[in-house]
Amino acid sequence: MVDYDAIASSLANRIVASDVRELLKLTEGRKIISFAGGLPDPSLFPKEDLAEIARQVISERGERVLQYSPTPGVGEFRRELAGYLERVGVAVREGDEILVSTGSQEALFLLGMAFVDPGDTVLVEEPGYLAAINLFRMLGARMVPVKVDSEGLNTDDLRKKLEALDKEGVKPKLIYTNPTCNNPNGTTMTMSRRRELLDIAGEYDVMIVEDDPYSYFTFEEVEFQHLKTMDKEGRVVYLGTMSKILVPGLRIGWALGPAKAIRRMELVKQIVDLHSSTLSQYIAMEAIRRGIVDRVVAKAKSLYKRKRDEMLAAMDENMADLGEWTRPIGGFFIFFKANAKLDFKAMLPEAVERGVAYVPGQAFYIEGDGRSTMRLSYSEPKPEEIRKGIELLAGIIREKTG
Amino acid sequence: MVDYDAIASSLANRIVASDVRELLKLTEGRKIISFAGGLPDPSLFPKEDLAEIARQVISERGERVLQYSPTPGVGEFRRELAGYLERVGVAVREGDEILVSTGSQEALFLLGMAFVDPGDTVLVEEPGYLAAINLFRMLGARMVPVKVDSEGLNTDDLRKKLEALDKEGVKPKLIYTNPTCNNPNGTTMTMSRRRELLDIAGEYDVMIVEDDPYSYFTFEEVEFQHLKTMDKEGRVVYLGTMSKILVPGLRIGWALGPAKAIRRMELVKQIVDLHSSTLSQYIAMEAIRRGIVDRVVAKAKSLYKRKRDEMLAAMDENMADLGEWTRPIGGFFIFFKANAKLDFKAMLPEAVERGVAYVPGQAFYIEGDGRSTMRLSYSEPKPEEIRKGIELLAGIIREKTG
Repeated sequence: MVDYDAIASSLANRIVASDVRELLKLTEGRKIISFAGGLPDPSLFPKEDLAEIARQVISERGERVLQYSPTPGVGEFRRELAGYLERVGVAVREGDEILVSTGSQEALFLLGMAFVDPGDTVLVEEPGYLAAINLFRMLGARMVPVKVDSEGLNTDDLRKKLEALDKEGVKPKLIYTNPTCNNPNGTTMTMSRRRELLDIAGEYDVMIVEDDPYSYFTFEEVEFQHLKTMDKEGRVVYLGTMSKILVPGLRIGWALGPAKAIRRMELVKQIVDLHSSTLSQYIAMEAIRRGIVDRVVAKAKSLYKRKRDEMLAAMDENMADLGEWTRPIGGFFIFFKANAKLDFKAMLPEAVERGVAYVPGQAFYIEGDGRSTMRLSYSEPKPEEIRKGIELLAGIIREKTG
Repeated sequence: MVDYDAIASSLANRIVASDVRELLKLTEGRKIISFAGGLPDPSLFPKEDLAEIARQVISERGERVLQYSPTPGVGEFRRELAGYLERVGVAVREGDEILVSTGSQEALFLLGMAFVDPGDTVLVEEPGYLAAINLFRMLGARMVPVKVDSEGLNTDDLRKKLEALDKEGVKPKLIYTNPTCNNPNGTTMTMSRRRELLDIAGEYDVMIVEDDPYSYFTFEEVEFQHLKTMDKEGRVVYLGTMSKILVPGLRIGWALGPAKAIRRMELVKQIVDLHSSTLSQYIAMEAIRRGIVDRVVAKAKSLYKRKRDEMLAAMDENMADLGEWTRPIGGFFIFFKANAKLDFKAMLPEAVERGVAYVPGQAFYIEGDGRSTMRLSYSEPKPEEIRKGIELLAGIIREKTG
C-alpha cells in the first residue's frame, strides 16, 4: 500500500478535518432539532415545476442539454442570469462577465486559486464564513481578521488593519465580505459603511469579494445597495448561488465581475471541472424565465420571516439573562454570545444528546476565538420545533452558567 | 480598476491559454467536419428515458434530490456505482472508497491537489491526455514523459526514467496512464505490459492513476484487465466518468481507490465545490439501475465501431503514402503521424477554412514535440462525413508534402 498520508501535498496537509463536522455527525439518524444546518427549507422546493422543466428540456433539447457545454457556462443561461441580476439590483456593467460555477463555493475557490498564493495576505470578516476561512487556510494565505459589529464589517478596524499592513510593506490580495444578512452574524452592513468600504478599498487598491447568498431574503424594508452596484472602479467580484433562491441540488452558482478577473477564474475552471452540469444550467434558466425563482423567493421570505420571529421571540423569553444576540433583517442566521464564559464546542455532544444542535462559534474565527458564541440557523426546523429547541438550549446554558 | 493580471497567483500564471482552443473557435457556427472534439455522438443520448427519470426523481423524491448532499456523493448512488463497476470488471475491494466528482476531470484535479506540490515529479504518457498535462503544469509539477507505443505505455522507458530519477534522489508522486483505448493514441496496453507496470510501480513504490473513460467501448475481443483489478497493493486510483457511457451533460465522474487516498481527495473537494449536483447523481443512479447505461454502451459500441471502420478505411485509401497511424481497438481516437515534416498547428486555420478540423498533436506533448502529428476523433461526425473529411485532409497534407 502506498503511504498516502506521507505523500500528501502541503496544501492537503493544511486542510483541517472539521471537528465540528464530526460532532454534527452525532445528529445523523436521530430525531433532534437542528439549528446547525443552514439548509433551505425543503417545503420551498418547487418540485412539480422543476420536474416538468427537467422533463421538457431533456426531451425537447436533449442534444444540447445532455452534451458538454462551455467552461464559462451555457450562453443562453448566462444572459438570462444577467437579466435576473439586473432586475434584483445587482449591476451588470459593460465589460463585466459571468462565470457559472458548481455552487458559489466553487466560484470562491476559483477566485482563491486565481489570485491567492501561499503567504499572500487576505482580509476576512471575523466571525466570518467558514468555507472562506477554510479555503484561505488551505491556500496557505495569511488571514487578517476584520471585526464585524451590528453595522456589518467595521471599516475603522479595516482601515487600521490596512494601515498596519502598509507599514509592513504588505499589499493584501482581497477583502472578503458577506455584507447582507451575514453568515454567521446575521448582520447587514449599513450604507455609510458600504461607502466607506469602497473608499478604503479604493485608497489601498484592493479587490473586494462580495459573497451574497442571502440578500434575496430581507424581511424588513432596509435600504441597501450591493457593493457590486455601488462599485464604479471594477473592484468588486460578486458571488451568488441558486441554492437559496431555487434549490441547492442543482449545484449552480456564479461569479460576476470585470472580465479580466472572471477570465482568470475561467482558466482555472477549465482545469478544475471543465464546466458545471449542463442540465442544471438549463433547468435554472427555465426556472428564472418562468418566474419560478421569483415565486420561491417570495414564499421563502414570508416563511423565513415567520421562523426568525419565532426564534427571536423564544430567545427573548428564555435567554434574556444568558447572553446577547443579533437581530437579523434577513437571511438564515442568528449569532449568540453567552454572558458567561462557556465552551459551546465542548457542550455540543450534550446538547445533541438532549435533542438540539447548533454550530459552535469557534468555527467562524480564524484562531480559535469565539468559544462562548454559537450560530443558530432557523431556516430548516419547523416553527414549533424552533421554540422547543430554544427552550432546550436555554436550559442547558442556564445549567452551565451555574 | 484593479490590475487583475498583476495580482494573479503563480498558479494562475502557469496556465497557458490554449492556442488550440482558440484556433478551434474558428469552427464555431461553421458547417465543417470536425475530428477535433471527442464529443460523444448525441444520437446515443437516451433522451426520453432520462426525461422520464428526471421528472420522476424530482417529483417523487424532490426533498432529497433537490437538497444539498454529502461531499463524497449520494450514498445510494455510490453503492449502485460500485455494483456497476464490479459488474464490468473493475474490482472494488474491501477498504476501497468511491468519491463522486464533477466530471472525471474534477477527480483528476482533486488527486493532483491532494498529492502534488510545486516541484514534485510526476510521470505522464507522451503523447498523453491534454487535461492531465495542463493540470500538472498548473500545479507546477515536473513532468517526466514516458513513451507510448503500439502496446501502450512503454515499460522499458518507464523503468529507465524511474532509475534516472532514483539516481537523482527523486521519488515521483505518481504515474498517470490511460491504458485502454488511449486518448490521444488509440492504443491499448497489453496484459504483459500491465503486469510490468504494476511490478515496476511496486518496486519504486509509486501510485498509479488509471484514467479510464473509454474501455467500455472495445470493438474487438481483446483480453485485458483493469490495472485497478490487477492491483493487490492499494496502489491504483481509478478514474471514471458517466460522460461517455451515458451523457456528458450530467457532469458526473468518480474516483475509486484506497480509502486513505480517496479521503484526502474528499477533504479537498469539501473546499472546491462541497459536492457535485445531487440531481445528476440521482439521474445517473436510476440510469444504471434501469439498464439504460448498458443499453447506451451496447449501442455506442456498434456505432463507434462503424465510424472507426469508416475512418480507417478512408485513411487506408487516401493516406497510405502520407503517414502512419494507430488502429484503435476501441475508444474515440486515431493518432496520425505524417511522413513529411509538417506543422499541423500552423496548418489548422487552412484546414478549417476548407471544411475539416482536428487537434494538432503538439497539445499532447509536454514540451512542444509532435508537430507533425494530429489526433483524429471519429466519435461525433456522421459516417458519410468521416470519409469526406479524410479526403479533404489527405488533399491538404498532400499539397503541403509537396
